[in-house]
Amino acid sequence: MAKKVLLVYAHQSSGSFNAAAKDAAVKALKAQGCTVEVSDLYAMKFKASATAEDITGEVQNAEHFRYAEETKLAWKAGKLAADIVEEQRKVTEADLIIFQFPMYWFTVPAIMKGWFDRVLTLGFAYGHDKRYSSGIFKDKKAMLSFTTGSQESMFSANGINGDMNVTLWPLQVLAPQIFWAPSHITTAARKTMLEAWCARMQGLLEEEPLTFTPSDCFDGEKGFQLKPEFHEKHANKEFGLTSGIHLGKPLPPYNQMKVGV
Amino acid sequence: MAKKVLLVYAHQSSGSFNAAAKDAAVKALKAQGCTVEVSDLYAMKFKASATAEDITGEVQNAEHFRYAEETKLAWKAGKLAADIVEEQRKVTEADLIIFQFPMYWFTVPAIMKGWFDRVLTLGFAYGHDKRYSSGIFKDKKAMLSFTTGSQESMFSANGINGDMNVTLWPLQVLAPQIFWAPSHITTAARKTMLEAWCARMQGLLEEEPLTFTPSDCFDGEKGFQLKPEFHEKHANKEFGLTSGIHLGKPLPPYNQMKVGV
Repeated sequence: MAKKVLLVYAHQSSGSFNAAAKDAAVKALKAQGCTVEVSDLYAMKFKASATAEDITGEVQNAEHFRYAEETKLAWKAGKLAADIVEEQRKVTEADLIIFQFPMYWFTVPAIMKGWFDRVLTLGFAYGHDKRYSSGIFKDKKAMLSFTTGSQESMFSANGINGDMNVTLWPLQVLAPQIFWAPSHITTAARKTMLEAWCARMQGLLEEEPLTFTPSDCFDGEKGFQLKPEFHEKHANKEFGLTSGIHLGKPLPPYNQMKVGV
Repeated sequence: MAKKVLLVYAHQSSGSFNAAAKDAAVKALKAQGCTVEVSDLYAMKFKASATAEDITGEVQNAEHFRYAEETKLAWKAGKLAADIVEEQRKVTEADLIIFQFPMYWFTVPAIMKGWFDRVLTLGFAYGHDKRYSSGIFKDKKAMLSFTTGSQESMFSANGINGDMNVTLWPLQVLAPQIFWAPSHITTAARKTMLEAWCARMQGLLEEEPLTFTPSDCFDGEKGFQLKPEFHEKHANKEFGLTSGIHLGKPLPPYNQMKVGV
């Protein structure tokens, strides 16, 4: 069956490098027979802020409004705002989600953060028994594709911005496609960047995800700490498990940028 | 002279723990003689998305709109949108900025990310010669005060969410005030949390910031990598310099949570 791809895209200008990267991805994926949907957030004037208006009709507790709990109830009752429902449909149908954006202040632009906050609601996207490797998205893939303003060297473990693996830790799944500072290079070099991106697209749907620690390695009875057997198993290893679950060891190099490390 | 504090606050409900933490801070700071301004982002219906509407009148290049460059020109020409100008005034006047929010998806809610993206513009907040310890905010202090949904144990170096020091790396300055999972504890325990926050407020303006690596330790001629003399100086140390500039060593424990480590 044809694979479905959702491309969540956040740039204001059709003349941007981000637009070119988005267009290249759509073309390469369609050429492989994939179905591609694009959520062009600025063009959609996507609402970024999580408010009571995201629930149709009365909320449960207006006095002490709690976004996660109210959207969970609304999701169950089919009372979420139409734009959220539409994005959730796209997420449900997608085999792969690509987020295309320029990095703003070390993470996604606010409009895309709003997509995370409003679309990935409690109940639909996560819950006490649904998270990480036991989450509802465990059979889907997601990846970041983004541009930076800074050079690559500035985002290393001894560069002025610090290690990009640490910056990316809270964000992702498949290895990211990083376009380092395209505004500082020649048109020819930008074209080469796009060609590499198109080439990667050929095998993207079969790519292995980055290394994460499966959630059943943690003990829910003991504050979701790593179970002793995994600690012991890893005791003589040089590096931590991941950038976040580092066990006080050096971080595994490229853990958030390359597969298999 | 009386110190000025700006409190940037993002919660939808006046009945929330975040509202209580904000109110406690305002009261404690005023009691010390500080002037306090509050930017209540949801109440202000603060615009989160970075768009061409943030520039009054014509933009320089509508075809290929570049937010950073356009807002820099508009800032110079006094043509930024009125809400941005007003927030920039508050930032300019403040000695201390406190960000109060519930953590959403491992960082600030979209409405607060929008405050970062739109208020901290190129030229006003940063530039090629203005960043980090040589930035225009070097004599100001900033800190995060936030609530989590998860327990503290889940955000440790062997907890399921990974090390909070890694999560916080891209965000901050003074040690954060973290209210771990207030919705899972008793009213009395929440009261104790607020009392500790008020007590901290007494010395807040004199607090030392977290440990960062000064920007003149990096070589601008060589991709802003750490200068060899600092590498050598640190060669025999057990831990890296910070969570981000870790030099392939274990991260200094609590680097993003406690002062002096």
